[in-house]
Amino acid sequence: MFQTFEPVSDRSFAGKHLPLLRAEMEKLGLDGFIIPHDDEYQNEYIPAYAERLMWATGFSGSAGAAIVMKERAVMLTDGRYTLQVRQQADSDYFDYVDITTTPIDAWLAQNASEGASIGYDPMLHTSAGVEKLRAASQKAGFNLVAVHDNPIDAAWKDQPGAPLTPAKPHDLKFAGKSSADKRQAIADQLKKTGADTALITAPPSIAWLFNIRGGDVSRSPLPLGRALVNKDGTATLFIAPEKTGNELPEFLGDDVDIRAETDVGAAMEKLGAQGAKVAVDPALAPSKYADDLKAAGAAIIDMTDPCALPRATKNETEIEGARSAHVRDGAAVTTFLHWLATEAQSGDIDEITAAKKLEEIRSRSDELRDLSFDTISGAGSNGAICHYRVSTESNIKLDRNSLYLVDSGGQYPDGTTDITRTVPIGDASDEMRDRFTRVLKGHIALATIRFPKGTTGHQLDAIARKPLWDMGLDYDHGTGHGVGSFLGVHEGPQRIAAAPNTQALMPGMILSNEPGYYKAGEYGIRIENLIVVNKPEPVPGGEREMLSFETITLAPINLDLVKPEILTHDERAWLNDYHARVRKTLAPLLPDEVKDWFENATRAI
Amino acid sequence: MFQTFEPVSDRSFAGKHLPLLRAEMEKLGLDGFIIPHDDEYQNEYIPAYAERLMWATGFSGSAGAAIVMKERAVMLTDGRYTLQVRQQADSDYFDYVDITTTPIDAWLAQNASEGASIGYDPMLHTSAGVEKLRAASQKAGFNLVAVHDNPIDAAWKDQPGAPLTPAKPHDLKFAGKSSADKRQAIADQLKKTGADTALITAPPSIAWLFNIRGGDVSRSPLPLGRALVNKDGTATLFIAPEKTGNELPEFLGDDVDIRAETDVGAAMEKLGAQGAKVAVDPALAPSKYADDLKAAGAAIIDMTDPCALPRATKNETEIEGARSAHVRDGAAVTTFLHWLATEAQSGDIDEITAAKKLEEIRSRSDELRDLSFDTISGAGSNGAICHYRVSTESNIKLDRNSLYLVDSGGQYPDGTTDITRTVPIGDASDEMRDRFTRVLKGHIALATIRFPKGTTGHQLDAIARKPLWDMGLDYDHGTGHGVGSFLGVHEGPQRIAAAPNTQALMPGMILSNEPGYYKAGEYGIRIENLIVVNKPEPVPGGEREMLSFETITLAPINLDLVKPEILTHDERAWLNDYHARVRKTLAPLLPDEVKDWFENATRAI
Repeated sequence: MFQTFEPVSDRSFAGKHLPLLRAEMEKLGLDGFIIPHDDEYQNEYIPAYAERLMWATGFSGSAGAAIVMKERAVMLTDGRYTLQVRQQADSDYFDYVDITTTPIDAWLAQNASEGASIGYDPMLHTSAGVEKLRAASQKAGFNLVAVHDNPIDAAWKDQPGAPLTPAKPHDLKFAGKSSADKRQAIADQLKKTGADTALITAPPSIAWLFNIRGGDVSRSPLPLGRALVNKDGTATLFIAPEKTGNELPEFLGDDVDIRAETDVGAAMEKLGAQGAKVAVDPALAPSKYADDLKAAGAAIIDMTDPCALPRATKNETEIEGARSAHVRDGAAVTTFLHWLATEAQSGDIDEITAAKKLEEIRSRSDELRDLSFDTISGAGSNGAICHYRVSTESNIKLDRNSLYLVDSGGQYPDGTTDITRTVPIGDASDEMRDRFTRVLKGHIALATIRFPKGTTGHQLDAIARKPLWDMGLDYDHGTGHGVGSFLGVHEGPQRIAAAPNTQALMPGMILSNEPGYYKAGEYGIRIENLIVVNKPEPVPGGEREMLSFETITLAPINLDLVKPEILTHDERAWLNDYHARVRKTLAPLLPDEVKDWFENATRAI
Repeated sequence: MFQTFEPVSDRSFAGKHLPLLRAEMEKLGLDGFIIPHDDEYQNEYIPAYAERLMWATGFSGSAGAAIVMKERAVMLTDGRYTLQVRQQADSDYFDYVDITTTPIDAWLAQNASEGASIGYDPMLHTSAGVEKLRAASQKAGFNLVAVHDNPIDAAWKDQPGAPLTPAKPHDLKFAGKSSADKRQAIADQLKKTGADTALITAPPSIAWLFNIRGGDVSRSPLPLGRALVNKDGTATLFIAPEKTGNELPEFLGDDVDIRAETDVGAAMEKLGAQGAKVAVDPALAPSKYADDLKAAGAAIIDMTDPCALPRATKNETEIEGARSAHVRDGAAVTTFLHWLATEAQSGDIDEITAAKKLEEIRSRSDELRDLSFDTISGAGSNGAICHYRVSTESNIKLDRNSLYLVDSGGQYPDGTTDITRTVPIGDASDEMRDRFTRVLKGHIALATIRFPKGTTGHQLDAIARKPLWDMGLDYDHGTGHGVGSFLGVHEGPQRIAAAPNTQALMPGMILSNEPGYYKAGEYGIRIENLIVVNKPEPVPGGEREMLSFETITLAPINLDLVKPEILTHDERAWLNDYHARVRKTLAPLLPDEVKDWFENATRAI
């Protein structure tokens, strides 16, 4: 079982741990200390030792920060966590602030006194982040202090150690391109900008660049490490010696020097002594690295992580792998949907049981390496919480005459999946069916859009919303996120959302298509498939080559929730074609007892 | 007659003027000099004395730059001017560069030698612009030199003087809000940010803030000047004494100190001596001002021009004025459309004759103060040039069996108009009618969209393009620009375009809705109406208040170009409703001989 459902923190954490932290802060002469959720790698999922925010505050959400002053402390979280932070971080110790309107720097600019010493750990903040903190310190007159020994690590007596899961080769039959070829492409990029070497600090980039996968964090097969890629295509991989095993040196070859991650400092000293020009991503690398490189005498070239875009634009092998993974995953999800349509109709099944059932079905495949995120198993009103994570404390039953929303995914060697389906338990109301059909119209509009080269995700976001907007409805999350290839289920730089995004959608990019509708306190609806950007193609009778999407997720969309009379002819045709493809592809893979139900679930309407 | 059609420059300019410029550059010890199109006010339309780029190069386009080095020179223009720049700026003297891919700073970074002295006039570049030049100079090692006596002004013997058209009060019945109230609102904004005063450098903001209008540039009733607005609501207006007349001091009252524009420097010295905190827009104010303020001892607070957003969100009086102006202007345009449908069908009318005819009809109204821009009068293949401006050299006839595109507008005391109509001369081909109908579908989609608060223009741009994208077609310009209230026909900060824009669309904003289609060498199609953002309203059966647009432009959309079978039921209903409104509103205002034609031109289909 990959998932656990026990609460990982409780409200007593702040009372127990803040005094210990404040004692360490006093030793360092600090009036305040910033605790971001982020770890040293800017990971989305962080290892246990890096759960510093949770240790200090009790808050277990996936994003946010705390600022601990001598006499007061404040939690900064976004709208997703308004309720959760109040449950977990004790109000005896914390004020609560919306981090969207008042980010860390803004709060400090308003609240830190002139002359106060405010500490931050320069391994946990990027250069871009520190730039903002510095502007705030200049404005408000407090002293911003880089603290090299994190006071939480000093105070946290039973802090877990760093994860040391061995990194393993990611076969060329999945990666599609050798590490040498990838490094050469990066080297060509570096030459154009005059950089001698690029410092790569993001684990998914390490994994992609060297064609390796690891297991240092849950839900994403990442090896924690760093790298330098040089303009001649050679590279140094910095990774804990415990993780390299015997296999890696031979796999990586002579052009990759493997060193301990603790050697990064010495390597930067050397680069400085050579006066090297080093490309560093100011939005991704720990600010300490840029500081140390500069202090040692190196010249910094600000550059977006050069692995990010080639990683996002999947090659043919990766796309073919994603298709295979989705067939496998789709069969598992379909089997689960059959279970929901039968046994779970009793009204006696709870959210944890359902999530476990789904994991059990997925695990029947030998190819499953992990889930790609913790399953969102939301019954009734819990379905209306977009980022709901069920625990033994929140667990409720899938009641009769309600909706159940399940958002889940798997990690397979050939691809990462992410799918959401919404199904009725008992009978759905007319309103539920109406809303579901509006969401479906938005989903289809995005799935079928054609768009010219250069189009970015912020241009397409409204295409999926328009059928809801027409009715005075909307949803408060983005429409699509990038997805990795046996890597993170959330991956940039592409995105389909209202916020400005300068990255054009390019052939080979995988994204989610997930419009939704949420009625607080009652029910949630989301329909999510993954889509791949196709190669540009001429449109008959047209003039410009246009891009489009291929939908690769395969599983029935619940027809009992569809009001066919609200769909246009073309929308109905899309749904019927999709279900015909689902039927043809998955039928051979399904258990016998599912087949009759499956025929009906994918019927033409 | 407001318009002239004679060429304003010729290809001989560079040969005659570059040597004079280079002689002045040598006196200043410069190896290169940057000549932007921009004037000291960052105006869209610049006064004659500021046509420095045209004087030096012959290029008369509305945007671009030149960089003149000792031995070479380069023209930097965008895609609109690829052809024109080659015609006007002699290739014996210039290389040509696309300013979109290689802006001024990038060209210098690649081409200026280490140690070279590259001059710029700090009155013609904003702080944000100079910031980029400075980064390039650091990268490439050239010296960036602020030149306070522009060498073009020294070399240009018959340079015209500054315009001195008197500024006049803009009546409260048009402005809807007193200058005192506007200044108080700005003062409240300043207090929040801790600024003592705001330096206002943009003429449309001066016009809006003091409720005055001028005539210093063509097509936009701007008074050139500057202002300081203080946190107590008082202000200083800096304007040439010749322009104030007797009326202005009394109109502006005791709280506005009127000073000569040449006194700005002394006022900045004084602010510096007081250590004042001065809000300055880094993207709008001449960099010289920020430099001088800092040198004098003032603290600069970067702030978007505080007049920009209140100016863009029109009050009820301004919106009612815009409606009235559009009725008046719509009657004139409709009378012109009748002329096009009758006399111009001969095939013997040329573009200039048509443009003059339209201006003559508009001028029958005593309320017309100016055109809002030079009429785009594009017959046949000239219609495919999005920013075409007819001259005696380009003038062609409105041939039989072609399309004619006319984009024009008027300046009235109660509002600024901007309308494009496309009409057939003789018979249109099936392809033309198909394309016109696709453009119309996009126009209607934007006109009828509902969207939630917070939506920005980059989210809506694709709504107007989708019907074209579906067919493998597109257009290479934005879908909508902001429009002023008896001010500039192009106005920010709102915009509907693919490029990221962080300004939410807000009630009272006026924008254009102008999708198009262009077949190079053959014909152009554009359908443009102005739209106003309505107040948020609940949608029956919905949950969220939604914004929408009111179309205020009134003139027939050519029905001979519409293929009704491509329109949906709702699209046809919109078109019929629109034409019914046009008919009801304009019929009483039209000459008798137009009426029969008008009935048919606005019939239901």
